Amino acid sequence: MRLLVVNANTSQFVTDRVAAEARLAAGPGCEIKAVTGEFGARIIGTRAENAIAAHAMVDLMARHAEGCDAALIAVSYDTALDASRQLLTIPVVGMTEAALLTACMLGGKTGVITLGSAGLPMYQELVAHYGLAGRVAGWGVIDRATAFSPGDTAELDRLLVAEAKRLVEQAGAETVVLSGAVMAGVPRRLQAQVPVPLIDGIACGVRQAELLARMKLPKPTAGSYAAPKGREVSNVSEALRKAFGDGG
Amino acid sequence: MRLLVVNANTSQFVTDRVAAEARLAAGPGCEIKAVTGEFGARIIGTRAENAIAAHAMVDLMARHAEGCDAALIAVSYDTALDASRQLLTIPVVGMTEAALLTACMLGGKTGVITLGSAGLPMYQELVAHYGLAGRVAGWGVIDRATAFSPGDTAELDRLLVAEAKRLVEQAGAETVVLSGAVMAGVPRRLQAQVPVPLIDGIACGVRQAELLARMKLPKPTAGSYAAPKGREVSNVSEALRKAFGDGG
Amino acid sequence: MRLLVVNANTSQFVTDRVAAEARLAAGPGCEIKAVTGEFGARIIGTRAENAIAAHAMVDLMARHAEGCDAALIAVSYDTALDASRQLLTIPVVGMTEAALLTACMLGGKTGVITLGSAGLPMYQELVAHYGLAGRVAGWGVIDRATAFSPGDTAELDRLLVAEAKRLVEQAGAETVVLSGAVMAGVPRRLQAQVPVPLIDGIACGVRQAELLARMKLPKPTAGSYAAPKGREVSNVSEALRKAFGDGG
Amino acid sequence: MRLLVVNANTSQFVTDRVAAEARLAAGPGCEIKAVTGEFGARIIGTRAENAIAAHAMVDLMARHAEGCDAALIAVSYDTALDASRQLLTIPVVGMTEAALLTACMLGGKTGVITLGSAGLPMYQELVAHYGLAGRVAGWGVIDRATAFSPGDTAELDRLLVAEAKRLVEQAGAETVVLSGAVMAGVPRRLQAQVPVPLIDGIACGVRQAELLARMKLPKPTAGSYAAPKGREVSNVSEALRKAFGDGG
Amino acid sequence: MRLLVVNANTSQFVTDRVAAEARLAAGPGCEIKAVTGEFGARIIGTRAENAIAAHAMVDLMARHAEGCDAALIAVSYDTALDASRQLLTIPVVGMTEAALLTACMLGGKTGVITLGSAGLPMYQELVAHYGLAGRVAGWGVIDRATAFSPGDTAELDRLLVAEAKRLVEQAGAETVVLSGAVMAGVPRRLQAQVPVPLIDGIACGVRQAELLARMKLPKPTAGSYAAPKGREVSNVSEALRKAFGDGG
Amino acid sequence: MRLLVVNANTSQFVTDRVAAEARLAAGPGCEIKAVTGEFGARIIGTRAENAIAAHAMVDLMARHAEGCDAALIAVSYDTALDASRQLLTIPVVGMTEAALLTACMLGGKTGVITLGSAGLPMYQELVAHYGLAGRVAGWGVIDRATAFSPGDTAELDRLLVAEAKRLVEQAGAETVVLSGAVMAGVPRRLQAQVPVPLIDGIACGVRQAELLARMKLPKPTAGSYAAPKGREVSNVSEALRKAFGDGG
Repeated sequence: MRLLVVNANTSQFVTDRVAAEARLAAGPGCEIKAVTGEFGARIIGTRAENAIAAHAMVDLMARHAEGCDAALIAVSYDTALDASRQLLTIPVVGMTEAALLTACMLGGKTGVITLGSAGLPMYQELVAHYGLAGRVAGWGVIDRATAFSPGDTAELDRLLVAEAKRLVEQAGAETVVLSGAVMAGVPRRLQAQVPVPLIDGIACGVRQAELLARMKLPKPTAGSYAAPKGREVSNVSEALRKAFGDGG
Repeated sequence: MRLLVVNANTSQFVTDRVAAEARLAAGPGCEIKAVTGEFGARIIGTRAENAIAAHAMVDLMARHAEGCDAALIAVSYDTALDASRQLLTIPVVGMTEAALLTACMLGGKTGVITLGSAGLPMYQELVAHYGLAGRVAGWGVIDRATAFSPGDTAELDRLLVAEAKRLVEQAGAETVVLSGAVMAGVPRRLQAQVPVPLIDGIACGVRQAELLARMKLPKPTAGSYAAPKGREVSNVSEALRKAFGDGG
Repeated sequence: MRLLVVNANTSQFVTDRVAAEARLAAGPGCEIKAVTGEFGARIIGTRAENAIAAHAMVDLMARHAEGCDAALIAVSYDTALDASRQLLTIPVVGMTEAALLTACMLGGKTGVITLGSAGLPMYQELVAHYGLAGRVAGWGVIDRATAFSPGDTAELDRLLVAEAKRLVEQAGAETVVLSGAVMAGVPRRLQAQVPVPLIDGIACGVRQAELLARMKLPKPTAGSYAAPKGREVSNVSEALRKAFGDGG
Repeated sequence: MRLLVVNANTSQFVTDRVAAEARLAAGPGCEIKAVTGEFGARIIGTRAENAIAAHAMVDLMARHAEGCDAALIAVSYDTALDASRQLLTIPVVGMTEAALLTACMLGGKTGVITLGSAGLPMYQELVAHYGLAGRVAGWGVIDRATAFSPGDTAELDRLLVAEAKRLVEQAGAETVVLSGAVMAGVPRRLQAQVPVPLIDGIACGVRQAELLARMKLPKPTAGSYAAPKGREVSNVSEALRKAFGDGG
Repeated sequence: MRLLVVNANTSQFVTDRVAAEARLAAGPGCEIKAVTGEFGARIIGTRAENAIAAHAMVDLMARHAEGCDAALIAVSYDTALDASRQLLTIPVVGMTEAALLTACMLGGKTGVITLGSAGLPMYQELVAHYGLAGRVAGWGVIDRATAFSPGDTAELDRLLVAEAKRLVEQAGAETVVLSGAVMAGVPRRLQAQVPVPLIDGIACGVRQAELLARMKLPKPTAGSYAAPKGREVSNVSEALRKAFGDGG
Repeated sequence: MRLLVVNANTSQFVTDRVAAEARLAAGPGCEIKAVTGEFGARIIGTRAENAIAAHAMVDLMARHAEGCDAALIAVSYDTALDASRQLLTIPVVGMTEAALLTACMLGGKTGVITLGSAGLPMYQELVAHYGLAGRVAGWGVIDRATAFSPGDTAELDRLLVAEAKRLVEQAGAETVVLSGAVMAGVPRRLQAQVPVPLIDGIACGVRQAELLARMKLPKPTAGSYAAPKGREVSNVSEALRKAFGDGG
């Protein structure tokens, strides 16, 4: 099985971190093909950057999906998830949706910790879009950007553990999702210090994508996820144009 | 890996059907251990029967979980799912919850078809309990009990396909869940006749249970899913008493 | 009139406390028949214990309802309320549902105080199941188990009053429900110290059960509360088997 | 006990019908004091009429509450219910709220039948205001005004029974509320023809008002239902002015 | 264009303050006609006062709408908004609804600051009635009545700015509505000290009323906002009686 | 005043139709500057096309906003509305959001008619994103694409009027929104045949954009709509890069 992992950021180091965790999570015989955005924001963090990334995401999907069995969106806003699902014939999973739905299967409400308060409303809108707002016990925000320098995770770890415990004790979280592609692998590192399961979007996303690939459910031929047919698009990449079935 | 599949009905034929589909869905090396209820309703179909089955379910779980890596509730009301999750140290998955959450990952709203109008409110309450009412496009009911006689599926199949198409065309369903343990395997049989993915609770449940087992997330030590500790219970099965950690 | 009050705990002292308050609340000529669980948890406090109690509750209902005009579930999780309603031909009231609905008739949102944080999610799910989450102003938790020793209510009282006032002043509660069967009578004791009505589940439950008994509404013959008919159940108590109309 | 029943319509025949049913529902020793509006609409049926009736309602309450133990709003829009609750020191019950909450205690969702499609949105907004929209299975409307002529209930009865059955069979209603003060007594007449309980707002309202009166819960001294204190009002009835505690 | 601005309080100074701000907000050629209540509360602040004001509002509307192109309700509870909309043939706007909907068009969730905790539940119910509860980030309350003395706004301003900043920083408000007719003009004064737009109900209401007047949409002839026709009302003002089309 | 009207479709005829209606709706002295997309779909109709259009929209905004006082998104999915709001310093209005919010100010629930069932779920998700799902009475779909040929509107008009009437009579719509940029002007043409106001997204959008421009509310400096600062983006248009404040 081959799994396409798409980072629509232009940051290779995020792709590398995500790919490393994806390889740990993948089952035997599952190959990870990780790709990085070529236009748009270095790190998607605002609404306008996310809008550009929507195009970047479907473009990357169209160019790299061939030969893959499923795709994973490795941007924690699940950018263009619905669009990619419609466009491709293979299953597409979003890292945050996968984290939330997997958390649901552990029971109760989940706490969500995000990096940076600026993105919080965007995450809240995403969760509401999934109809899962009622499953969120509370939100935590870590606003210490410097904590992400390589080699120095002590302060970040301390903050994350404290926030996770606060969500468990005060907000009733029975699981905690650490949001953000750059957080890939962090739940594994901190799990021992937190009394409830810590959920990693990349780890969940890889596993759910494999699961869907193995189910071999058919591409819908009706509804809003049916493949585009005879749609006219112009001035986009050749791969994207072909994905729309446009004879051009 | 060994997966415990629990049918809290006292009907061996339901267990057999479920086990057969579970074995088809299970990954290589996953052994299915299917058990059947020993008290309560032959077929759980009303609120009062489901209340008895809650006890039967945790009892079966306590008696058979040892040596298993995850458990699947093979009753479509997901009877005692939360209770079983709390009681056991292995992941527990409900067949209907697994079906709904897997459907969510295909995008859009799902249609749900149930057998018998009497159970419809119970399913609707279950979906609401999961916080997923907003993800349901519409409900279908098949009230032809006789259709379930062995060897005669033509009429049932016709009714199911018609109802699934109605949900797609009129209610906007982008996937359709066929609810009921006894429906195990039916989605596979009818998929070719329906324009959107047909979802099988047993097939999803087995795969999600395997997924959770592989994630090796820890048992929570806080919250309402922490294992019972020093609780006093009496006049229940020895296995159940032990599961509560009651020295007796 | 005779009112069946069912404590599915195996704790006689809870039954006694409940029965005492029930007798104070009951109208003239209303006899209280209080019964206690014979298997399961001494004090129901976790999900798994509640699952066992669901069976215990319908069993007690089936065995003791004869000759009674209505029944009251004296467990604050309203264990097996819907199941008991379906099974019996007399009205069945849950103490927490009765408290919440009575509070609604006083206007505005209510605060709910529970004993022990472990049970809080279960109460929240119960309130959501009733569709009344929007009527709850906030939740309070008292985690001082020792406060319940006989003779020493001073500390508990102080904590309860403080929490009730906090809910009024900070959360906008216009009434406060003191949840828990063991709290029967406490609202009466503390009312003078709190600026809004304190609601007692047993007092409300007894009165609402009497009210429903006097209305003499018919048992439904359609829907999910119609009596079970021709259902097959086995290996349950004789009374329960009979309640299912199983000729056996 | 004395119960004030307030019809803010100027229609004596509605008051008479309501009072008759109220007397049937009232317990032994409960005296019904029924009063009729003196300004505003003959039959409240539109938004603007209901706005005038809000004033009429609090005015009637202020003038007639003295010596009464509880009050019932006998207008099915529960006109000025929250306002009357705040103004008076005795419990105030709305006929529609009482019907809905009593229906909740029978379990499941309720169907609501209203007279005239014009008022339907107003009822739906009222139910949403109570936070009970999720407990309504469906709505029925009877648009045959002439059916209300004295002596000729055959056609109305036929329509009501048909609509009630439709709500049970197609919308999943497990109880049916017949809305409208003028419907007082009709549920009793038609109950035998409908397979689920038919709920009468006046019958429920009288009983719930008696129940609250007997509970002797205190008037809140905090929150939005506390009695007005030192408020200045002018050019209203003397009784109303006094109820505001305005020394004038 | 002429815009009717209706204050159903009996306080001329509130009308004056509102009218001053309305004139600032009005476009060129828009004349403001401001009227004051003649019965009821000096300042509407409780549920019962608001009930009386509902009558006062439709009465003022009926008496003063002639010759106007739109009307604005200058009471922050939007008293009798729906009733006035139904009664009149010109558009009617509520100051709080206008503030909230205008805030929606700036994106994200809004914080709402009210004067006095007593009115808070009434505002929350109003927002819920509009279906906009999900758009509110949080609520703030200023309980310093004395701050409103003429000439002394320093303390009030300090409190308002602090509360607005708290809503932005802690509750995620992306706009802040200052509620209350008496707050007309305050947002303009304080805007420079707050990092997100401050919304003024009168300023928004005037502009939205002008906008609707210019759209010249027809009065509905169906539904619950159609003009009353052939309704019988009595003992109300001549103007109100005429508005109901009652030939008397 | 100058208003930027952005059609992210590549279809000039849609831009022309929109611009014509925009000029009719605009107030005196308001100049309309209409621009058309240069890459992506000819007509945005599926999820994947909408993802590409998100980029196209912010790109067009960045390139053409200079010298304008407000902007209107003339795509009925309100593509990249939140992103454009964040990116620009002038107010940005979406045609569908403007239609819905304006409809709210007329009272009650609105019906929404869309062209083509494929887009229906996308509109429903948009409305839910705005938190306005509770304000929608029902949805109508017109699936007759050929009806849009120039010169032949008779059949389309007939279908639209019939669907609008159905929404009023059966779903309780008190206003009806005709969705779709290509529908600009149609409500004006059909209004006389429908008993409730017909709402035009372009007409509302132009007026609301003018209103916001005149209010001169400040650009937020906090929250998720604050302008991007020091963000790094690459390989996008020069105008877009500048809008992100990226020194390159």
